[in-house]
Amino acid sequence: MKQFTSVKDVPFSVNELIAKAAAIKKSPYSSKIGQNKTLGLIFFNPSLRTRMSTQKAASNLGMNVITMNIGEEGWKLEMEDGTRMDGGAQEHIKDAVKVMSQYVDILGVRSFAKLKNREEDYSEIVLNQFIKHAEVPIISLESAIRHPLQSLADFLTISEQKVKKPKIVVTWAPHPRALPQAVVNSFLEWGRLTEADIVLTYPKGYELDPQFTEGIEVVNNQNEAMEGADIVYTKNWSSYSKYGKILDISDSWMITPKKMELTHNGKFMHCLPVRRNIVVHDEVLDHSLVYEQAKNRVFSAQAVLKQLLESSKNGKS
Amino acid sequence: MKQFTSVKDVPFSVNELIAKAAAIKKSPYSSKIGQNKTLGLIFFNPSLRTRMSTQKAASNLGMNVITMNIGEEGWKLEMEDGTRMDGGAQEHIKDAVKVMSQYVDILGVRSFAKLKNREEDYSEIVLNQFIKHAEVPIISLESAIRHPLQSLADFLTISEQKVKKPKIVVTWAPHPRALPQAVVNSFLEWGRLTEADIVLTYPKGYELDPQFTEGIEVVNNQNEAMEGADIVYTKNWSSYSKYGKILDISDSWMITPKKMELTHNGKFMHCLPVRRNIVVHDEVLDHSLVYEQAKNRVFSAQAVLKQLLESSKNGKS
Amino acid sequence: MKQFTSVKDVPFSVNELIAKAAAIKKSPYSSKIGQNKTLGLIFFNPSLRTRMSTQKAASNLGMNVITMNIGEEGWKLEMEDGTRMDGGAQEHIKDAVKVMSQYVDILGVRSFAKLKNREEDYSEIVLNQFIKHAEVPIISLESAIRHPLQSLADFLTISEQKVKKPKIVVTWAPHPRALPQAVVNSFLEWGRLTEADIVLTYPKGYELDPQFTEGIEVVNNQNEAMEGADIVYTKNWSSYSKYGKILDISDSWMITPKKMELTHNGKFMHCLPVRRNIVVHDEVLDHSLVYEQAKNRVFSAQAVLKQLLESSKNGKS
Repeated sequence: MKQFTSVKDVPFSVNELIAKAAAIKKSPYSSKIGQNKTLGLIFFNPSLRTRMSTQKAASNLGMNVITMNIGEEGWKLEMEDGTRMDGGAQEHIKDAVKVMSQYVDILGVRSFAKLKNREEDYSEIVLNQFIKHAEVPIISLESAIRHPLQSLADFLTISEQKVKKPKIVVTWAPHPRALPQAVVNSFLEWGRLTEADIVLTYPKGYELDPQFTEGIEVVNNQNEAMEGADIVYTKNWSSYSKYGKILDISDSWMITPKKMELTHNGKFMHCLPVRRNIVVHDEVLDHSLVYEQAKNRVFSAQAVLKQLLESSKNGKS
Repeated sequence: MKQFTSVKDVPFSVNELIAKAAAIKKSPYSSKIGQNKTLGLIFFNPSLRTRMSTQKAASNLGMNVITMNIGEEGWKLEMEDGTRMDGGAQEHIKDAVKVMSQYVDILGVRSFAKLKNREEDYSEIVLNQFIKHAEVPIISLESAIRHPLQSLADFLTISEQKVKKPKIVVTWAPHPRALPQAVVNSFLEWGRLTEADIVLTYPKGYELDPQFTEGIEVVNNQNEAMEGADIVYTKNWSSYSKYGKILDISDSWMITPKKMELTHNGKFMHCLPVRRNIVVHDEVLDHSLVYEQAKNRVFSAQAVLKQLLESSKNGKS
Repeated sequence: MKQFTSVKDVPFSVNELIAKAAAIKKSPYSSKIGQNKTLGLIFFNPSLRTRMSTQKAASNLGMNVITMNIGEEGWKLEMEDGTRMDGGAQEHIKDAVKVMSQYVDILGVRSFAKLKNREEDYSEIVLNQFIKHAEVPIISLESAIRHPLQSLADFLTISEQKVKKPKIVVTWAPHPRALPQAVVNSFLEWGRLTEADIVLTYPKGYELDPQFTEGIEVVNNQNEAMEGADIVYTKNWSSYSKYGKILDISDSWMITPKKMELTHNGKFMHCLPVRRNIVVHDEVLDHSLVYEQAKNRVFSAQAVLKQLLESSKNGKS
């Protein structure tokens, strides 16, 4: 594996990677392949779970970690090539990336969608500058349109439910702020490569980029979609067609105990952070898989780091 | 020991814990019980001594450390149960705590008194949410009303003075800003359990919560209180009765060389940071125990961490 | 070596220190002399290269690292002695330094020139308070008037070019903001002690402090200065005589491919961050030594840390 920015970077099956993560979960301290290696974590946006779980994963392998919060230090990077840099940006991203990548063995980067310009977000400007200019493998810690570490943790969690070919309903839910599509995009992209039976449900106007929904069944009636579900994977996202907008939708899409009754004893999942009693009712959340998902972020990150370290050691991808 | 949030959590005598810290001070690198263990340090407020000394303590034991500055990342937590989270808070504290506690083996938290509402501060809302929802032992890095790591370092420092049954005067001193009562509360709570002879002095209006002063002699004349003291433990606090207010008090309570002459060759102590020539005269501070206190923060934290790690290893409290 | 704040602290020749850094570059993980030792990094100003490279260097030696961002935590230090601290400052720098130095084995500090008052900047107020009050060796991570870690990395990079007595032109270049003189001051101070043939060029009005330029040839015509150069070391700085001001200078001092043609196949160097197409043309930067310089920051810092640890171990300077 050369990098980890989407499921397409995984050189074997999703199930194989999940199995590797599950093995690490059983014995998290057995490999110290990271000794004398350093992981750089670069945050353009805030982070709790990703920051802590990835640090923990690296430590488990014996790696050192250096974190940088780009925004907080009031330091602006130029994104465009060939410009006269006479504005606010003090450094070109290509120089910063090239330099940072010399101080570490693997470089993680988080950079959210800005939700202003769809073409810009969907071209993954920041992530791609990292991929292009870094001299070490890049890990996405959530990019504008994908969150692969989350998806790996999600499918590890689902695999632990031991349900043969589970029915997963992926449902939109309300939220007072405009949120990116990264988590749901990634979940669908990974899910398609598993044996799950996935149904996607959202109010009209919340269609996603077709590259992520191709081959996925869509049902616009949430109640109908939830019938018989083993897993209720819930997430808000802002509109893709009216890019970054919140459309006028009633609260009726919140996941309640009553809706959960439609499922096949289904388990609620969410990547967190979540707004209680807006996205999901307290009672549903308190009996959900969300903490298992969060815990599995460690072993997912650890599996990815270990794979990257092994690949670079063996000189193969 | 299951947690360390007040002296009440210590399952043996204060002297025994001080002895453990003193032994660690002599040989700080001899135990690597923290290997493959991670300490999380969560700061809702700024920190220098606590942050650095606790990191150092953890490293001495072979632990990894992950720090999170909650405030700085513009990320707000909901504190109340059952609310519709449609305001500024992105995540409920119970979810954040439960998640964070899955990434570490011990979780430290700092959350100061807000000094707006006494009942709220004295109910330790944030600390108690951590205690309630974390799946690992909690260490207080200073809560709304207590600072036990400071108190342990203070009494280790006092024990090093080798004075049998020392007379300790705990004195209020002036300060331009409203400060919490945590340090003095904790000091009294610990001091009562040692062999010291403690006298508390403050201007009228600065009475503390009776739960912390019960059994402690109070003298409202500072000069009288200081007579014959071996230790002059100085701290400003805002009013408890007129909660969080600064009452109109003259500078006359500042600790000066002349006042120190009233003591029995007494040593000045303060937890730092301290405002020079407001709380204490330069000359007094420059010949004080404050740097020893600060240094002892490492060994105090290390004794606590070691104890928690040993208890969890042995499956006992 | 007792400290590392300027080339004057190096107790042997610059070439010897460069040789030590070069040896570490070949085998960066062979010494774990830093085990059970902690490096404190205190930043009054932002940092990318220095922060990451020094952390990496410390890790390579087995040291733990604690970083503190003074400014970001809204915490102000009093710099003057004897004042009544009734203003914004919560702690005197001498107390903070004394305390911080008790938690670490080596203390690094970054504090830039403020460019308001020349006498103040050139008296190195902050750095000198650290030197005076710390109980452990101090490393400058860039002070008001010097950046010795950068200079060591620069001359390591130059030595790797294997040019016998290279001609180095040190040239001023344009920049929209007022920048300190630290990097160029340091470069000249180190360069004088090497075998290089150094020519300094800048527009009239950009003269530097004579203590740094003594013995250095100055040519005010940039084109003339560049003739036959092996190295073109470029840096902007604000005026020393009209202290901290940007004088009215045209763009003509930017380093372009055409100017590079005047050199003896010269290599471009810059400490970064750099504004492209203001300081230097894209094409020049893309074929320069800047990334090598940045990489060499690790081995320079590592050589300095190792030397300080060895000296303190042997009880000699």
